[in-house]
Amino acid sequence: MRQLYHFWLSPFSRKVRLVLAEKKLEFELIAEPVWDRREEFLLLNPAGEVPVLRDEDGTVLADSAVICEYLDEVYPENPLFGDDVKHRAEIRRLVAWFDGKFNREVTDHLLGEKLLKRFFANGVPDTAILRAGRTNLTHHLDYIGWLFERRNWLAGDHLTMADIAAAAQISVIDYMDDITWSKHPRARDWYMRIKSRPAMRDLLADRQASFPPSRHYANLDFE
Amino acid sequence: MRQLYHFWLSPFSRKVRLVLAEKKLEFELIAEPVWDRREEFLLLNPAGEVPVLRDEDGTVLADSAVICEYLDEVYPENPLFGDDVKHRAEIRRLVAWFDGKFNREVTDHLLGEKLLKRFFANGVPDTAILRAGRTNLTHHLDYIGWLFERRNWLAGDHLTMADIAAAAQISVIDYMDDITWSKHPRARDWYMRIKSRPAMRDLLADRQASFPPSRHYANLDFE
Repeated sequence: MRQLYHFWLSPFSRKVRLVLAEKKLEFELIAEPVWDRREEFLLLNPAGEVPVLRDEDGTVLADSAVICEYLDEVYPENPLFGDDVKHRAEIRRLVAWFDGKFNREVTDHLLGEKLLKRFFANGVPDTAILRAGRTNLTHHLDYIGWLFERRNWLAGDHLTMADIAAAAQISVIDYMDDITWSKHPRARDWYMRIKSRPAMRDLLADRQASFPPSRHYANLDFE
Repeated sequence: MRQLYHFWLSPFSRKVRLVLAEKKLEFELIAEPVWDRREEFLLLNPAGEVPVLRDEDGTVLADSAVICEYLDEVYPENPLFGDDVKHRAEIRRLVAWFDGKFNREVTDHLLGEKLLKRFFANGVPDTAILRAGRTNLTHHLDYIGWLFERRNWLAGDHLTMADIAAAAQISVIDYMDDITWSKHPRARDWYMRIKSRPAMRDLLADRQASFPPSRHYANLDFE
């Protein structure tokens, strides 16, 4: 059985889960406590980070971007990287936007302060950092809205890796109840569209009692 | 003429310059003062970051990973992403290592403190951050050495994108004289090999009078 080493609230782990689900590939989820730096895990990925995928034939892959490109190449059904070199470049640009810029400007701030600092360092969230993350977030939601006004999905007519990378990040932020959806109706429409896909179900059901999600997190109508 | 908007000491700009040179593609270098947030430039890349490539047919591409994948697909001569899906995954894993992990743990610390803080914020480098960057650097140089002990180039028999991503980062660090090469003989042998390629020449000649390079920066024998 295919195995995915993950952390439940890591956007990068979520991205791979979504790709596997969109491609209807079965897999087993293994929660990896990366902070323990288990030797066995470091042998799989010397970078010590999740996600790591062990495919059915034993191939071990690290880094979410690497895993997604690999899965799309090896399992070409329901392609997620477009159909020509320019479309592929636009999709990858947006993936880099969410994996890089969004993650750095928003998720690192909010998830870092709210979850990682609290649970792993016993610290108190720094309100200045939270504020910066939330301010940056509004610009990103505006950008999602701007794209969705012009396109059916973020990178064009069909769902692609760009939507998946964005949904992976947004789902983490929404879990923590940091999005005022009423102020971002277009981004909300896009998120509602992807949220209603079967591939999202498993992710929306994942939660921890000690750190519960926002009230509307799994509701398709945001109520 | 193909145009590359860049910042001379950005490892990501350097990575694209090396790819263009390895593929023997002519291009014009345009220094972009990203801190000015020029409107004309933001229209090319709303993320406001270099590198940005305008290809001969007018296609505009942002994000160094996107540009490199695109160039390799459109100009397949001297391929840099390997020849099968597993080799490609290993190459991309190492690219992600240097673009992500190395950049975050080493370059952000050293370049951030030494150049960006000094020239753009009139600040004084924080010695604790410099020390952390240098400590992390030794682990990365050991890893390069470990790979090079087992392979002809970082990802296998031939020069690939992995070597280029690594050389782009290392050249920036070496410019700032932060590498004690005598302590890392294997990493040094690898760097000597890539440094002697014609594609590196242009990069090794790039310097600024107000921020001069280490004495050995452009010397192929490190003397």
